[in-house]
Amino acid sequence: MVIADAKRGDIGNTSSMYAKSVYEHFKCDAVTIHPYMGEDSVRPFLEYEDKLNFILALTSNSGASDFEKLKLEDGTFLFQKVISKVNSWNSKRNCGIVFGATKIAELKENINSFENLAVLLPGVGAQGGSLEEVVKTFKENNRLNLVVNVSRGILYKSTGTDFGEAAQNEIAELNKTVINLL
Amino acid sequence: MVIADAKRGDIGNTSSMYAKSVYEHFKCDAVTIHPYMGEDSVRPFLEYEDKLNFILALTSNSGASDFEKLKLEDGTFLFQKVISKVNSWNSKRNCGIVFGATKIAELKENINSFENLAVLLPGVGAQGGSLEEVVKTFKENNRLNLVVNVSRGILYKSTGTDFGEAAQNEIAELNKTVINLL
Repeated sequence: MVIADAKRGDIGNTSSMYAKSVYEHFKCDAVTIHPYMGEDSVRPFLEYEDKLNFILALTSNSGASDFEKLKLEDGTFLFQKVISKVNSWNSKRNCGIVFGATKIAELKENINSFENLAVLLPGVGAQGGSLEEVVKTFKENNRLNLVVNVSRGILYKSTGTDFGEAAQNEIAELNKTVINLL
Repeated sequence: MVIADAKRGDIGNTSSMYAKSVYEHFKCDAVTIHPYMGEDSVRPFLEYEDKLNFILALTSNSGASDFEKLKLEDGTFLFQKVISKVNSWNSKRNCGIVFGATKIAELKENINSFENLAVLLPGVGAQGGSLEEVVKTFKENNRLNLVVNVSRGILYKSTGTDFGEAAQNEIAELNKTVINLL
């Protein structure tokens, strides 16, 4: 499964071309999308029924507190409003959200609002998120629709000539951790 | 002036590479940026002192009402919070905002909060924004730090073999409109 972590999001006619580029030209299976510009900026991606569109909800970085965690008039957080909107866009079951593996407390508090959304969780490894905590949380909530992304933790596992082997071993270790928890 | 309307925005180390790509490889003068992920996703762009970073505030599309116009706990709108944050990031005077030319009422209400920000205004032409209204509003507020973007209104002015001439004439007309208003 190839996920284009392209963080797209633009006015409708431009998003249409981005969707075409990611799904038809590059033939990716999924893409990450910025929600800020709202429904018509996301809609063109949703026309692709056999793809998976991961919309940013609560991201793994510290800046998540600047806007994503702002409290709205009704007492909810902006990222919760995003999750609620994405649920409403998911009639074709091709929507997901991005939720930082570094935000375990928020994950536990919000996991029951994810309805049928697939969840992409970056932040394990270099960013400090715990793979064990993430998998346990999903298991405890009887969910298995998660994709845990580890980038630098694998890519930069070794700077020596053994980087290929080191990366492969790290992937094997991570997979073993997940299998043992399920 | 070349503005990369790339709508970038990612975790810090990725944004650093995007900034390098846009400014060092492609040698653009400015870029558009998604604010959703917060300060550390924008910061790498701000290191380039002689560039101009236009952060999305209130966009020209209908989806702007989904999140950008959500009311926060303190009674302000999300896009107003973004403008306020961008003001606080503007110590090097290399920040701007994107504000839809289709949103004249909001432009009039908020223009005095723009402090030293340059303003990129898309939405004139195909999207229905009025060039006259935009320029008048800036003039009435003694501001000249605006960039009005017209894309499809010029690019698709003619589908015939005269498209070059038609586009050139449209640019001349638009410039004449601006000059007459100033």
